[in-house]
Amino acid sequence: MKNDRILRALKREKTDTTPIWLMRQAGRSLPRYREKRADREMLAILRDPPAAAEITALPLEYFPVDAAVLYNDLVTPFFGAGINVRMEVGIGPVVDNPIEAPADIDRLTPFDPNLTLAWSMEQIKLLVQRIDVPVLGFIGAPFTLCSYLIRGSRTRHQEEIKRFIWQHPEAWHRLAEFWVEHLAAFGIAQFEAGAGAVQVFDSWAGSLGLEDYERYVLPHNEKLIRTMQDAGVPVINFYTGNPALLPLVSAAGGDCISVDWRLPIDAAWDLVGERAIQGNLDPTVLLAGRDVTLAKAKDILDRVEGRPGHIFNLGHGLLPGTDHNVIKALVDFVHEYEAEKAGA
Amino acid sequence: MKNDRILRALKREKTDTTPIWLMRQAGRSLPRYREKRADREMLAILRDPPAAAEITALPLEYFPVDAAVLYNDLVTPFFGAGINVRMEVGIGPVVDNPIEAPADIDRLTPFDPNLTLAWSMEQIKLLVQRIDVPVLGFIGAPFTLCSYLIRGSRTRHQEEIKRFIWQHPEAWHRLAEFWVEHLAAFGIAQFEAGAGAVQVFDSWAGSLGLEDYERYVLPHNEKLIRTMQDAGVPVINFYTGNPALLPLVSAAGGDCISVDWRLPIDAAWDLVGERAIQGNLDPTVLLAGRDVTLAKAKDILDRVEGRPGHIFNLGHGLLPGTDHNVIKALVDFVHEYEAEKAGA
Repeated sequence: MKNDRILRALKREKTDTTPIWLMRQAGRSLPRYREKRADREMLAILRDPPAAAEITALPLEYFPVDAAVLYNDLVTPFFGAGINVRMEVGIGPVVDNPIEAPADIDRLTPFDPNLTLAWSMEQIKLLVQRIDVPVLGFIGAPFTLCSYLIRGSRTRHQEEIKRFIWQHPEAWHRLAEFWVEHLAAFGIAQFEAGAGAVQVFDSWAGSLGLEDYERYVLPHNEKLIRTMQDAGVPVINFYTGNPALLPLVSAAGGDCISVDWRLPIDAAWDLVGERAIQGNLDPTVLLAGRDVTLAKAKDILDRVEGRPGHIFNLGHGLLPGTDHNVIKALVDFVHEYEAEKAGA
Repeated sequence: MKNDRILRALKREKTDTTPIWLMRQAGRSLPRYREKRADREMLAILRDPPAAAEITALPLEYFPVDAAVLYNDLVTPFFGAGINVRMEVGIGPVVDNPIEAPADIDRLTPFDPNLTLAWSMEQIKLLVQRIDVPVLGFIGAPFTLCSYLIRGSRTRHQEEIKRFIWQHPEAWHRLAEFWVEHLAAFGIAQFEAGAGAVQVFDSWAGSLGLEDYERYVLPHNEKLIRTMQDAGVPVINFYTGNPALLPLVSAAGGDCISVDWRLPIDAAWDLVGERAIQGNLDPTVLLAGRDVTLAKAKDILDRVEGRPGHIFNLGHGLLPGTDHNVIKALVDFVHEYEAEKAGA
């Protein structure tokens, strides 16, 4: 690997320039993405490591990002547990036999990710041989993952997962523990296959208030992250949506906390404490074009002032319709800003 | 009017018990709602004041809430400005000739709400004669209202309104000023027709970070609220989604700030300062049934400790599928809690 900026930033070591990658960088924003997918089902491609690896590496043909994030989906661990899942247009992942009552949890079958999800690790092994930047693996956190499992598909306000948790708190803890164990094993397997770090996505935890996060999410995320770190995995802890949760999210751990745009990055970093920080740019900014994007990026970089441990990213995934030329301009700007500022 | 608890709470005067009303209380949760609508288009009913007034008053037949909130829609002021709007299933309000570029703003026609939106005021006049609780009027704030106007329908991430604001900041301020003037006039007209207070809905402002809120939303909301207050209107300032905005939302003014569940109500009240407070219960809680709902309501009431100026409400509107028996249990619990606690 020639470019280890991201791995150094995760340790808060100084880097020659600010590292950047973008959530959902391997997707619809890239003209050749459709071609590579060739209209195959996403879930079929994931089980075809050479095809999936080509998509993971595709962004590097467009812009010099400092990491390649695995082309995968949060819900693929469901297959390991014996749950079938389909991608439905306009809905997202839909589970065939959802969990509706506590007894349904007993249907989940324990699994070894290295056996039942081997295609993910094979993809990583192919990529590590081929590309010059770290491969980032990822897993969902129990709350976010189970928002797709309970009642079969995610609801707009997370009302089904919340209802299950409040009505059956003991069963929820049992369900979360099942997933913590298997997700930690999956994260460690990705790391052992060559991933440079693993990001934990708790995309929907921001719909919770402080007490519910502390009681139903924090202990599980903390155990999940600690188990991976104990195995040597650098962990990025991602969430979005409720800045008031940031101290609790940070308490759950991770080498790096990934934050959204609802707080300025300097204020967020004060709450994150002595860790690396990632994120902050609103993905809708890129839809407003190059000039708006670079002005917002400049504001973030000026607030960070070159402090080691900053990984430039969005606060959530790239939106459909984002122009890859704007992404390219952003990546170049972030890489060149500190040097230009020093020279100016 | 026999029951003025809400109006007293807005002035932070002591009340005999905690007042409560619920956003979207006049809707699908009520079995007789469908019957009253008789499958007519919502927008047609609004222009039929006796029919609309029956729906506004309907919740009082089910549970003794302390206010009736006008059956109306945020987007009806569009009709005043010469913009046609339709309700589309699964999408919401869709505008026929949306604003896409700065020049489109000139198409908006100035209007007098007392003439072109007279049906709203007629509904209020009918209600005031008939019911024993205050009628609450409402308006949208410019950001939220225009998220339905720019590009024709609200997008999930508010990406179109944000893009417009960032690309055309001067035009945005002109557009917002048009709406501030006309929305303030509409709010005042509702008050003069008999509404006891007017709620300003900035439902989607929580998708913004602090700088954007301060630059593009705060000055307009502040002027809108102040103009109504100068005319004697008690104002409730509602938003949801980003607790970090709360100090700025409070700076925009209002007799009362309506907050969601992402901060505990006591922490939120500290940020709101010397004003009344409303809201806080997550509407998804009611989907989890009576026991969960009353436990969460108890927590809110225990945090408030009977401090004057608390109006019990949800943090956002009631969700489809909420059981009206659970709503009834909540309303009774809130009314009886302080007396039962004192007696215990």
